[in-house]
Amino acid sequence: MLSRLPSRPFALWRAKIRLPPKLTKLQQKGIDPMRILVLGGDGFCGWPTALHLSEHGHDVEIVDNLSRRDIDNELEVSSLTPIRPIGQRVAAWEEVTDRRIAYHRFDVAEHYHRLLTLVQDSKPDAVIHFAEQRAAPYSMKSSWHKRYTVNNNLAATNNLLAAIVEAAMDTHVVHLGTMGVYGYGTAGMRIPEGYLEIKLDTDDGREVRQEILYPANPGSIYHMTKTQDQLLFGFYNKNDQVRVTDLHQGIVWGTETDETRRDTRLINRFDYDGDYGTVLNRFLMQAAIGYPLTVHGKGGQTRAFIHIRDTVRCIRMAVENPPEAGERVRILNQMTETHQVGELARIISDMADVPVEHLENPRKEAEENELYVSNDTFLSMGLEPITLEAGLLEEIRDIAQQYAERCDRTKIPCVSQW
Amino acid sequence: MLSRLPSRPFALWRAKIRLPPKLTKLQQKGIDPMRILVLGGDGFCGWPTALHLSEHGHDVEIVDNLSRRDIDNELEVSSLTPIRPIGQRVAAWEEVTDRRIAYHRFDVAEHYHRLLTLVQDSKPDAVIHFAEQRAAPYSMKSSWHKRYTVNNNLAATNNLLAAIVEAAMDTHVVHLGTMGVYGYGTAGMRIPEGYLEIKLDTDDGREVRQEILYPANPGSIYHMTKTQDQLLFGFYNKNDQVRVTDLHQGIVWGTETDETRRDTRLINRFDYDGDYGTVLNRFLMQAAIGYPLTVHGKGGQTRAFIHIRDTVRCIRMAVENPPEAGERVRILNQMTETHQVGELARIISDMADVPVEHLENPRKEAEENELYVSNDTFLSMGLEPITLEAGLLEEIRDIAQQYAERCDRTKIPCVSQW
Repeated sequence: MLSRLPSRPFALWRAKIRLPPKLTKLQQKGIDPMRILVLGGDGFCGWPTALHLSEHGHDVEIVDNLSRRDIDNELEVSSLTPIRPIGQRVAAWEEVTDRRIAYHRFDVAEHYHRLLTLVQDSKPDAVIHFAEQRAAPYSMKSSWHKRYTVNNNLAATNNLLAAIVEAAMDTHVVHLGTMGVYGYGTAGMRIPEGYLEIKLDTDDGREVRQEILYPANPGSIYHMTKTQDQLLFGFYNKNDQVRVTDLHQGIVWGTETDETRRDTRLINRFDYDGDYGTVLNRFLMQAAIGYPLTVHGKGGQTRAFIHIRDTVRCIRMAVENPPEAGERVRILNQMTETHQVGELARIISDMADVPVEHLENPRKEAEENELYVSNDTFLSMGLEPITLEAGLLEEIRDIAQQYAERCDRTKIPCVSQW
Repeated sequence: MLSRLPSRPFALWRAKIRLPPKLTKLQQKGIDPMRILVLGGDGFCGWPTALHLSEHGHDVEIVDNLSRRDIDNELEVSSLTPIRPIGQRVAAWEEVTDRRIAYHRFDVAEHYHRLLTLVQDSKPDAVIHFAEQRAAPYSMKSSWHKRYTVNNNLAATNNLLAAIVEAAMDTHVVHLGTMGVYGYGTAGMRIPEGYLEIKLDTDDGREVRQEILYPANPGSIYHMTKTQDQLLFGFYNKNDQVRVTDLHQGIVWGTETDETRRDTRLINRFDYDGDYGTVLNRFLMQAAIGYPLTVHGKGGQTRAFIHIRDTVRCIRMAVENPPEAGERVRILNQMTETHQVGELARIISDMADVPVEHLENPRKEAEENELYVSNDTFLSMGLEPITLEAGLLEEIRDIAQQYAERCDRTKIPCVSQW
């Protein structure tokens, strides 16, 4: 029998024999592995998160309807990096690590009963919910895009919460929110982690203190859906005691993580187009091909940033430290630095010797704002942030320059206006 | 020719001759009539509102997908009052008043382009948006009902706003919200009309004042969708300057208005079942048939109330007094009295000599709460509320007793639990 083995496909051979896996990082720490569903696990944050959790010993399953790849078709654009089909991705991961990630292709916003069945069958300890349309410019392109973003994002979140309640599971939901729920104007205050202590005058002249959800001030339909998600989480948490961690994330930059680097077939997505490219990655791309760095307006907008490697670490920490039973929705700010957009452009301009060009701002937003953000929780959990200073040059060299010839320059300008 | 007229149907005859209409109430006041779409114009509030606006001289068109009648089929229950099909209703209105109300049957949550075309063709000055699933118990019956309520209500609101922006119309949106967005626990404060002044401590020790949307605390999926609607209104108002009036309405009681009384074919809906029957109308029904008045828990819940005749007046006042261009979303509290549920039961019990029965509360809510509400705006516009005292006995006599034989007693208990 043994002599026949080499003629079989490698994966099939392993499926028969099932070697015991090596001791994982979790087992080294003495923590039980968790069963985790990653909704939207083929996307820019979802894919490296799935790999990172798998690498750390968790049992990961991906659900994705490949909508992000379909949107690339719609926009006639591709990831700068040559991402592989999801089937090749998970096969390569298994080949490299001997760890299996199951993949289910369906739309969680459309196919509630498929999601319910998966939750009932897989009994996940945690579901990480990335299954939302995540670009502000895309959400503002037309009525259709506004409607798609609202219908998709809210149905996805509500379906997930309803399925967990219907399945009577104590699953922890980890959701990718956005710093954009806060709006950008903080009147000299540090933005707290989701809840704001306020003082109120009562009718009989007393002053009472209350803690409320930070008042929402979204700047696009996309950001608005995340503020509506907060209300869904708040309700299901209050009424059904669903445990939820909502991660208000800054703008992600960078491409590769320790896991996606292990094989070129695992490479992560890099968007540089006017709709899906985030501001810093767009600058990096522009620097790599000698295209002027396009700053909207004066560049006085201050935004929060985080590297993709810190994103996946933060999500793992959130998963491994779930809220207690009965705890209110835990809101964490998932960001590590704040910068003015114009200042970032100047840094990269100096680094790469490309000019900065100021364009009319296609968005309705303040020309200038301050932004102070509390991110104490992740720092207290041991996050050691990757700084812009340390990572920018590497990113230009290893990604933007390496794949520069794949860039379609006509896709760089922002075309969505609002 | 004249001798042949009597043999033709009356409506056809009038359609040919088109007598000039009498001077309307608006023309008497010297106000131009408005073009008004009433979305959900076949419903409990929508139908009498459409008639009231038409009576006052406005040009009214109704859009309705008849979902409320379909839900009666699902729940195997009927309005206590014998409501007529919408076609008979609008024909009867034309016969009685010589005023025409157009009726369009489609689903505003599903058929965006039909709505867009109607907005472009009719160029409404105002759209009154009742096109939402409006029962808290129904929204909590099952996962399906939660999902239907979220998907329907948010898509309807978003479709309307997106259509107005796409059509580049300056249409005023008047929306039926609910007092339930505030939650029920006000710490000794009067609930303001939608916006709350708060005080904040800044990092450098100053105290700043801000006005924020009143923090949401919904008690059901239905109520939650109304809090999510507020975020939609806020965004489209800020980004696209859509003029919006959001009416946070109390629990409606009563059945008939001056207009629905004019012909039995115009009679309004009266729900007494455990899902759609509002608390006071349920008590009236129970009193009429000698069924014990069913109070949930101790009956210490304080709620806000308004008579249906005041509802239609308030909506007309809101339509005829639109916000200025650029004004933020106008939020008005559309209620006239607050009462404890148990106190109401005692009043009606005394009036009708039926006992009160306390049942276990199927809802998750506080046993007792106080509720002080500001409703200054409508009072300042001249609203003279119909009081419970004046209207209760009439309602028992004219509606509940008159149609008592149509009551299905098995539909009285509340079956939705959460």
